[in-house]
Amino acid sequence: MKTDTQEIDIPTFDDVKKARERIAPYVHRTPVLTSSYFNELSGAELFFKCENFQKAGAFKARGASNAVFSLSEAQAEKGVATHSSGNHALSLSYAAGRRGIKAIAVMPRTAPEAKKAAVRGYGGEVRECEPSTAAREAMLEEVVASTGADFVHPYNDARVIAGQGTCSLELNEDVGPLDAVVAPIGGGGMISGTCLTMSHMSPSTKIYAAEPKNADDAYRSFHAGEIIEDDAPQTVADGLKVSLRPRTWHFVSNYVTDVLLATEEEIIEAMYLTWQRMKIVIEPSCAVPLATILKNRDVFAGKRVGVILTGGNVDLKKLPWMQS
Amino acid sequence: MKTDTQEIDIPTFDDVKKARERIAPYVHRTPVLTSSYFNELSGAELFFKCENFQKAGAFKARGASNAVFSLSEAQAEKGVATHSSGNHALSLSYAAGRRGIKAIAVMPRTAPEAKKAAVRGYGGEVRECEPSTAAREAMLEEVVASTGADFVHPYNDARVIAGQGTCSLELNEDVGPLDAVVAPIGGGGMISGTCLTMSHMSPSTKIYAAEPKNADDAYRSFHAGEIIEDDAPQTVADGLKVSLRPRTWHFVSNYVTDVLLATEEEIIEAMYLTWQRMKIVIEPSCAVPLATILKNRDVFAGKRVGVILTGGNVDLKKLPWMQS
Repeated sequence: MKTDTQEIDIPTFDDVKKARERIAPYVHRTPVLTSSYFNELSGAELFFKCENFQKAGAFKARGASNAVFSLSEAQAEKGVATHSSGNHALSLSYAAGRRGIKAIAVMPRTAPEAKKAAVRGYGGEVRECEPSTAAREAMLEEVVASTGADFVHPYNDARVIAGQGTCSLELNEDVGPLDAVVAPIGGGGMISGTCLTMSHMSPSTKIYAAEPKNADDAYRSFHAGEIIEDDAPQTVADGLKVSLRPRTWHFVSNYVTDVLLATEEEIIEAMYLTWQRMKIVIEPSCAVPLATILKNRDVFAGKRVGVILTGGNVDLKKLPWMQS
Repeated sequence: MKTDTQEIDIPTFDDVKKARERIAPYVHRTPVLTSSYFNELSGAELFFKCENFQKAGAFKARGASNAVFSLSEAQAEKGVATHSSGNHALSLSYAAGRRGIKAIAVMPRTAPEAKKAAVRGYGGEVRECEPSTAAREAMLEEVVASTGADFVHPYNDARVIAGQGTCSLELNEDVGPLDAVVAPIGGGGMISGTCLTMSHMSPSTKIYAAEPKNADDAYRSFHAGEIIEDDAPQTVADGLKVSLRPRTWHFVSNYVTDVLLATEEEIIEAMYLTWQRMKIVIEPSCAVPLATILKNRDVFAGKRVGVILTGGNVDLKKLPWMQS
């Protein structure tokens, strides 16, 4: 199936290569870790790409940096803006700070104070709105109209997708041919970047999208052949509540082999085991791929599998295994 | 000051080099991480040697593997034994398992079940004793007498110290000349290995031992010029409650520049910040060096400083910042 891409700008692999040069001074080339424990448990050979060690604590620093450093001088002077209550707001503030330009993040007034403080800590400005999609979009529109800021969508943006594609570019260079790559799916930015890169560098590598069962809009979209949106899903994987958009649907519908689901319990267990065995801090959204690998032994056993650990921003005083 | 070393076997740098070859198949060459956040906070350039990623979760796998793989075939057949309620018991079980020989760990019956289970998980046998030094030593003596097992002391053992010395050997190779190295001090095994290696590879590098104020026996020993033992100290840094012994006192008294202290609050804060900013799991004992670096800016600012992150074995359901 081919999506009609004539009306939207879809990034190319050349954009990924340019992104890599552009963002190199501002992001980490993150390490790839292995775990004999998880290899034994899964029957697969797993390569964990540690974006939890990335600047601002998540892969989102790649896409945000690519967007910010793509701007013309004239546009940069007017700054950037976004709506996000999570890692994208943080990352856009980080990138804007590195370029020395203004970033405005529209965030629901109910978002955790710690997240607002983190955005401000990187030099960004927080504009609080009522916690609804309508209020968020209205305020963003107002911000863009009054400041001329460039809107950098968290994932439905060609510059952002090309930036996320640099992650699997490094993974592929570091560990060689993989049978599969598994990444979480929310809005689809990381999965799209992964599809974009792997379809060029290693077309035989299968791409699996890992999603919480409680927020299975990508799963349902994948099987329906069109974007289906979730209505306020509840999941511990709070980075994965958003829905696909045209630019990410293009990649999901054309390149993803399957969407695999994990329950809340499976996600929390995979997160706990990762902390305990690998001694690294990952956020719940980031544990979904491992959860799906452990429950689908028939799919992954005997294979060389890349696992994107997307981020490590978590409230250390409120861990999910302590709330049951 | 020179300690009289004629009566005890003190390892040499040649022993460290042999240890490195001997244990290479059984331990990780752990990565060195940096953190722009902590560089800014401390004013120093910090290089974190991540032994929390080591096999069995701590640097102790180095010394234990060196001891186990140094044994003659005849001795190996009789197995190894130790007393330890912590990482050394785990590591000795791990190393013995790799050689396919028996390991017996004498542990107080009051030790956490999780720790006993972990020793058994690596194939070791747990012998429970009453929680007193006398009971522990009596049972160990009985085990050695009845089985012929080789007693591998957690730190007062030349093979163990030489094994721990491989850690700073790697650090020095990976990051080049350092002005200082800071490591935690309990019984002194890691500090001794660090002194042994650095005094040969980089004699101008200063070695600082970091100790909990609540268990400051090394500090008092250092200033008194003789070993002073603590009487049941209470600290969150539970790996650092034990006292120096002749082989480690040799290194501490001859090569350590200073012993620096940190309070319980400072240790917990350094641990929390490390998890939050570096996204890695470290145990409380392991946070003591960073705590002393952050409070002694005058000593470390402007310097290139190696920090040994000794281990990451911690009960994730019982974190120190959640108990206040």
